[in-house]
Amino acid sequence: MAYPDKASGFIIKEQDPFNGEPPLDMLCGASITPTSLFFARNHGTIPSIDAQDYRLSITGMVREPRSLSLDDLRTRFPAHTLTATLQCAGNRREELAAVAPIPGELPWGAGAIGTAEWTGARLADVLADGIEPRGPRPAAHVHVTGLDNVQRQNRTFGFGGSIPLEKALSPEVLLAYAMNGEPLMPEHGFPVRLVVPGYIGARSVKWLGEIRVSDKPSDNYFYAHAYRLFPSWEKAGTADRSSGIKLGEMPVTSVICSPRSGEQIKRRPARIQGYAYAGGGRRVERVEVTIDGGRRWQAAQLDDGAGAWAWRFWQIDLDLPVGEVEIAVRAWDSAANTQPEEIRQVWNFKGYMNNAWHRAKVIVDL
Amino acid sequence: MAYPDKASGFIIKEQDPFNGEPPLDMLCGASITPTSLFFARNHGTIPSIDAQDYRLSITGMVREPRSLSLDDLRTRFPAHTLTATLQCAGNRREELAAVAPIPGELPWGAGAIGTAEWTGARLADVLADGIEPRGPRPAAHVHVTGLDNVQRQNRTFGFGGSIPLEKALSPEVLLAYAMNGEPLMPEHGFPVRLVVPGYIGARSVKWLGEIRVSDKPSDNYFYAHAYRLFPSWEKAGTADRSSGIKLGEMPVTSVICSPRSGEQIKRRPARIQGYAYAGGGRRVERVEVTIDGGRRWQAAQLDDGAGAWAWRFWQIDLDLPVGEVEIAVRAWDSAANTQPEEIRQVWNFKGYMNNAWHRAKVIVDL
Repeated sequence: MAYPDKASGFIIKEQDPFNGEPPLDMLCGASITPTSLFFARNHGTIPSIDAQDYRLSITGMVREPRSLSLDDLRTRFPAHTLTATLQCAGNRREELAAVAPIPGELPWGAGAIGTAEWTGARLADVLADGIEPRGPRPAAHVHVTGLDNVQRQNRTFGFGGSIPLEKALSPEVLLAYAMNGEPLMPEHGFPVRLVVPGYIGARSVKWLGEIRVSDKPSDNYFYAHAYRLFPSWEKAGTADRSSGIKLGEMPVTSVICSPRSGEQIKRRPARIQGYAYAGGGRRVERVEVTIDGGRRWQAAQLDDGAGAWAWRFWQIDLDLPVGEVEIAVRAWDSAANTQPEEIRQVWNFKGYMNNAWHRAKVIVDL
Repeated sequence: MAYPDKASGFIIKEQDPFNGEPPLDMLCGASITPTSLFFARNHGTIPSIDAQDYRLSITGMVREPRSLSLDDLRTRFPAHTLTATLQCAGNRREELAAVAPIPGELPWGAGAIGTAEWTGARLADVLADGIEPRGPRPAAHVHVTGLDNVQRQNRTFGFGGSIPLEKALSPEVLLAYAMNGEPLMPEHGFPVRLVVPGYIGARSVKWLGEIRVSDKPSDNYFYAHAYRLFPSWEKAGTADRSSGIKLGEMPVTSVICSPRSGEQIKRRPARIQGYAYAGGGRRVERVEVTIDGGRRWQAAQLDDGAGAWAWRFWQIDLDLPVGEVEIAVRAWDSAANTQPEEIRQVWNFKGYMNNAWHRAKVIVDL
């Protein structure tokens, strides 16, 4: 299996490191995203790993440091399959960049999200009964590091980060060796990646080489330095790093996949459709659509979704007036959080976590 | 201990049932709210219960239905103390009512929230190993019903509702028999109330009489009918009940306690202060203040807070221009959710879950 070429519509944002996203009409064509259409977000070269040689090191505050082969993971722990959505923290950055420049970051559209059936061992099973309180402070974080080589700040190292121990021990966190029933593609972390449902995609570290239990959070560049949500007044270069929120769970969001902005719509009523997602296992409870800037809203129909960790697709048939119409969508989650109205109110210089109302301006013909 | 009289400043919204809230300057005077200032939200008469006669019934899908006395709760299970904020789903309804009428509901200010040290047995300990899968469907909900008498729809019954079994078994959920180190006041559920941190206050049922494990959610009026978040287009009387989200976790919010709207401020810089809170155990990560309608924001200082289930106090000293100034505040939580800008965007006919930016319009004198 390989990524389709440009003719297929898959949008390659960058060849090396390989980064791309599907167009929205293809993304919303299936609630389990075909692997070859799943967004690819990479920070370094894609390592070529021989499954026979692969070893995962379990270390840090564990009773018995270990090294596990792919076979160990497959045979010594029960296999679990879970449908989970992964979303890049930079999804919808392109809308933020239209408010004010975001230099040096990929201008993702709204396709840096996808949903797959992940199969693997539970991280909780691998760590079961193995955590040792060796230090003066209790174990509280699980560091994960990839076998890839990323260059930052004149150093070469594996992409990594950490998640709270409590999350690591939750049943939804998998050491995944299969995606949609097939071994992982190299671009998606072959042979083993972490899958952390409900969190930003960056925590689902690919080509997983090391798991380290610690009393402190990770000091990997991509946890301590990058993937922070800075306030609107901070700027690249001068930002006080400690002012940025270390990203974990994602907020509630929804996106119009069809029609696209700029599209000419021929018939009325028009079918509007898209996806909605909330992090942290919160359920998307309602999706609403407006064509008058939020004065009046209508409920979209939601599909059932595939459980707490997966997006939900929505659709609505609208009688649209002839002329230029701006359609906007917002979702509500089970904690009654909803999306901010204005893009400028969520702008940040790294371009993360844009969950403002998503808008599509269309031309409606008779 | 008793509620202070009007002279003390406590705002009695209704005598029977007894409902009241503290003024915001008193509320933000202490991060553990004095019991006598803690908001009171009641739907019926306050039952007078003799601690000796009190019995809590544990029933439904449990291996061994039981009846526990107050002494049983105190002596047979470990006592746990937890600092937790409770907030009424109707907190800040008065701002919603200013957008469009909300008849038949109490016009709460922003004081229907408070933080206490709750002591009691964990519900998880009381239910430990006792849940039986008797029916064809697994146990999934815990119903709780009070010993009070509420009248609705020509019936008299105890106030109640349900929480998911997973939440019920979480360590933060207490059968509380003490508040701030003292037995509960009658108004707060003597002798035993449930405390469900992170959820709307209505789930923390007072004068707890029955705990029932079930495969279905509660059909108590206050779960099945009331305490739902309806969309903006629904109206009292004609609302499709199924369109309302059954409320559980609360969204992120923040409020300016001082200065109050309409206040005349004498000196510059002015100290602005208030509280911020997020439901579901999410941490308030940042509080921001604007004096120009959200074009520019500044970070407020946050206190450490008392753990995942408690609010955080914030403050900022601002140089304000002379004249009329509108100060607004918003918070961000650990899932990068923030508050909606406009009150009208969260309006609903029951007046729940208002977490729009909180604003105070003040007059600044030289």
